[in-house]
Amino acid sequence: MSTSPLSPTERTTVRRMRERARSERSALYEVLDSGMVCHLGIVIDGTPRVIPTGYGRVDDTLYVHGSTGSAGLRTAPSQEICVTVTLVDGIVLGRSVVHHSMNYRSAMIYGVPRLLTDPEEKLAGLRAITEHIAPGQWTTARLPTRKELASVAVLALSLEEASVKTRTGGPKDEEEDYALDVWAGVLPVRQTFGEPVPDDRLRPGIPVPPHIADRAHAS
Amino acid sequence: MSTSPLSPTERTTVRRMRERARSERSALYEVLDSGMVCHLGIVIDGTPRVIPTGYGRVDDTLYVHGSTGSAGLRTAPSQEICVTVTLVDGIVLGRSVVHHSMNYRSAMIYGVPRLLTDPEEKLAGLRAITEHIAPGQWTTARLPTRKELASVAVLALSLEEASVKTRTGGPKDEEEDYALDVWAGVLPVRQTFGEPVPDDRLRPGIPVPPHIADRAHAS
Repeated sequence: MSTSPLSPTERTTVRRMRERARSERSALYEVLDSGMVCHLGIVIDGTPRVIPTGYGRVDDTLYVHGSTGSAGLRTAPSQEICVTVTLVDGIVLGRSVVHHSMNYRSAMIYGVPRLLTDPEEKLAGLRAITEHIAPGQWTTARLPTRKELASVAVLALSLEEASVKTRTGGPKDEEEDYALDVWAGVLPVRQTFGEPVPDDRLRPGIPVPPHIADRAHAS
Repeated sequence: MSTSPLSPTERTTVRRMRERARSERSALYEVLDSGMVCHLGIVIDGTPRVIPTGYGRVDDTLYVHGSTGSAGLRTAPSQEICVTVTLVDGIVLGRSVVHHSMNYRSAMIYGVPRLLTDPEEKLAGLRAITEHIAPGQWTTARLPTRKELASVAVLALSLEEASVKTRTGGPKDEEEDYALDVWAGVLPVRQTFGEPVPDDRLRPGIPVPPHIADRAHAS
């Protein structure tokens, strides 16, 4: 796993709101590991397309699930893409309208992805994606057959060129507004899990396994 | 407000997973009104950039907050952009790894945005964006001065060309896998609000207003 800092290029150098830029690689891992979906940007016929899809990370490689992407992801390996993962942590309520904001963590990655063809690497990528959205399921559910694996598209993207931006804390109001009779602060936002809902065709006597139940109860 | 159906163009016609496509305009409104941030895709120097930012909707116009976008949003009005809003509703746990999925609602909009210059329209756009992330604050917090309004960039994007995709329900497993001893179902995912955190410099005696407190308690 690389310990090099982030932002090696012009376009991943945060210019606006510089104080929100993070330069540690660990901050990138933290955002990616906490997120749920990524938004993948590609250019098709000169116009951008932004596709939400699942992903997973192993060291400095991001694996992206291709089958969600239709035409988009089939053309992706021949061109540069941008992948963004955003977590909203709070709504920042200022004393004035223009100082309303959001607390967030966001990672942006650029690169030319590789469409995986080697079955072992593809399996490792699919494992990363599966364990990211559903930790513990790789060793619980039935693993892919050779044919199933062939039908899945998995892209690998290096985390070499990336930037991370975060905002935390309360509003930054105009000095004279602190005297106003207006409540100010942060409304925290969280992603939480509800009680697991069994499938209609679940066979009787199969309990919710702890690795799933625990997620609902931890949140 | 338009009552025309969605998907008038080639690229907003959902091809993969057609059963997940929604064609009612009300479905578009529902996704946009439920989301928190959008991911805005633009092309810069031939490569895509995906920027998370706040937004709001009035009828068939989406207003996007420009100041988050740095160089990106200043070039946006001269080109087509793609705006995607995604809500994750659940993690679909299948009996096999390849039938893991996510329940979601996602909207994708294409168009050439207008950078607002008319102060009245800009104010209306800013109001939509503010009320989207913080309902009730427009009539509570201090409104923008003429100078503040001038310093904010607001883009307007028509909702004419849009598509909506949703997935709901349990896993679609292979017929023979229903006999497996593997729990299957959905782990619901929700965005919830925590208790409001007052600003360090909040004047004593200002209570949390009901329109903020109620959001925390409703979730």
